[in-house]
Amino acid sequence: MSDARFDVLTIGNAIVDIISSTEDDFLINEKIIKGAMNLIDAERAEHLYSVMGPAIEASGGSAGNTAVGVASLGGNAAYIGKICDDPLGKIFTHDIRASGVAYDTKPLENEPPTARSFIFVTPDSERSMNTYLGACMELGPDDVEEDKIAQSKITYFEGYLWDPPRAKDAIRQAADIAHANGRQAAITLSDPFCVDRFRREFLELMRSGTVDIIFANEMEILSLYETSSLQSAIDAVRNDCALAAVTRSEHGSLAITRENTVEVEAHPIDKLVDTTGAGDLYASGFLYGLTHDFELIDCARLGGLAAAEVIQHVGPRPQMSLKQLMSQEGY
Amino acid sequence: MSDARFDVLTIGNAIVDIISSTEDDFLINEKIIKGAMNLIDAERAEHLYSVMGPAIEASGGSAGNTAVGVASLGGNAAYIGKICDDPLGKIFTHDIRASGVAYDTKPLENEPPTARSFIFVTPDSERSMNTYLGACMELGPDDVEEDKIAQSKITYFEGYLWDPPRAKDAIRQAADIAHANGRQAAITLSDPFCVDRFRREFLELMRSGTVDIIFANEMEILSLYETSSLQSAIDAVRNDCALAAVTRSEHGSLAITRENTVEVEAHPIDKLVDTTGAGDLYASGFLYGLTHDFELIDCARLGGLAAAEVIQHVGPRPQMSLKQLMSQEGY
Repeated sequence: MSDARFDVLTIGNAIVDIISSTEDDFLINEKIIKGAMNLIDAERAEHLYSVMGPAIEASGGSAGNTAVGVASLGGNAAYIGKICDDPLGKIFTHDIRASGVAYDTKPLENEPPTARSFIFVTPDSERSMNTYLGACMELGPDDVEEDKIAQSKITYFEGYLWDPPRAKDAIRQAADIAHANGRQAAITLSDPFCVDRFRREFLELMRSGTVDIIFANEMEILSLYETSSLQSAIDAVRNDCALAAVTRSEHGSLAITRENTVEVEAHPIDKLVDTTGAGDLYASGFLYGLTHDFELIDCARLGGLAAAEVIQHVGPRPQMSLKQLMSQEGY
Repeated sequence: MSDARFDVLTIGNAIVDIISSTEDDFLINEKIIKGAMNLIDAERAEHLYSVMGPAIEASGGSAGNTAVGVASLGGNAAYIGKICDDPLGKIFTHDIRASGVAYDTKPLENEPPTARSFIFVTPDSERSMNTYLGACMELGPDDVEEDKIAQSKITYFEGYLWDPPRAKDAIRQAADIAHANGRQAAITLSDPFCVDRFRREFLELMRSGTVDIIFANEMEILSLYETSSLQSAIDAVRNDCALAAVTRSEHGSLAITRENTVEVEAHPIDKLVDTTGAGDLYASGFLYGLTHDFELIDCARLGGLAAAEVIQHVGPRPQMSLKQLMSQEGY
């Protein structure tokens, strides 16, 4: 395997988050599935904004957050995701580039507009997302940058990409390029409802070797195998994939290989504020570790460390240098 | 005095904040005056954004933050400030209305665009602002809503309004309407450099009785009287104005009348994160107290309580209900 220009390249829906606090009653009245990513159309987006409280705006998008996390840890990261050349698109581009991530996806010139997700954070700090995909619907094989993927140790993408019509073709193509260059491909299952929509495809990606590594939280892996037993899911994923990282919120995480299960505790926190980006930043830490030849247990710990930073403030990306945090922890 | 529809109406530059963390070296290299509000033009705005790190966006503007704080405390608040009908303007309008503030200033249809302030937060949590005024330059006497001012117990405006060319005319008109209706007028001195630009005008506003109440921090009141002695400034302001509220960061604040000086300690905090909005929210608490017949010492304490909330997170407006905080403190 030749030297890699990038540790991690991620592909995902490029989204600006619009984040507000709310009470649980609001979610019930608006029929928003709590904790999930709810897909919405333009009309629903307008309605939700009209009833939303005061908000802050921050660049987000699951795989974009992960790329930024890798860069914040000191790794080399690249990103592919579709925006429109409009004010939110300019904000998205500014933020990801200013974070040190290589980002050159050609923006749409007119419409649909840059994607936005209306995120409601309830008093328990859980986030419920309502995503208008806009420009992300146009991501396709033309956006796959072969040279960057060939030069990335790991290409990582979101299960959410099965929602837009042609992104999955881009993903299969990207995984083929990665493997042809002796690299690895990874997927995050994204969301339990996303798993429910695309279970057959996700299992096929794993069983065909199109992906080498999967990231999932407990609900997602249970949904994948349609079981309520975590042990059954662990036994099953071990047969389907070379490496699985399973996050369990305050119960820590698991790294599962064909032969072993490594378990780590959650990183301690002072105050839980907003869980947005927790899984994305966990993946940052884990991928940084993997691409720097860390032991699996340290990959999982580093994932927990990065996740702990992002859940202690509003917004889905780190507000302080993860490299500095990592070094304070002795890495 | 007839019943008032609003406790407080505020007038100011309507601004969306673009907030990022940086090191002190960056401020030096970019010749940004630390802790101050630096006025910038469109070209400089483009340059600063190009060299700024990843940011978050949040509605701001000093007097806008104060109106939102009053509403968050449970008061009735209104706001006057100029935006353009563009995406940032839509965000500004959404946020202030969603906060419960009456806001009906007619937006510009084309340009200049909605104002933005590039805010750099250094490791000591101090904020340094770089403001492109854009649409705010067009605020003028036509924007003064006589009915709302007549129905507001206190009309409060920013010293920053002396920067745009015609806003000061709007302010004098607003103060006249307030007094003709038996109401009060208040000003915040905004920034020590702003005081330096408009010292003569600000003193004239006070000595002529155009304003009844002034808000200032220690540096601003020292700048106003061109002294390095706080006691001299206190003695002077007592002669020039019926009531002055002077904030002193971690040293608490003072309420100064013709006869007395009331001193309160700073409200305790867990962790200082970003001082943006500290003075604005202090004014919210103080004004809420004044318009609800609180003792001066409680006005100052309530100011400190509101300021303490806003400096413990990124962004210039409260992220939790100040009414709830106030009630936890026994008010």
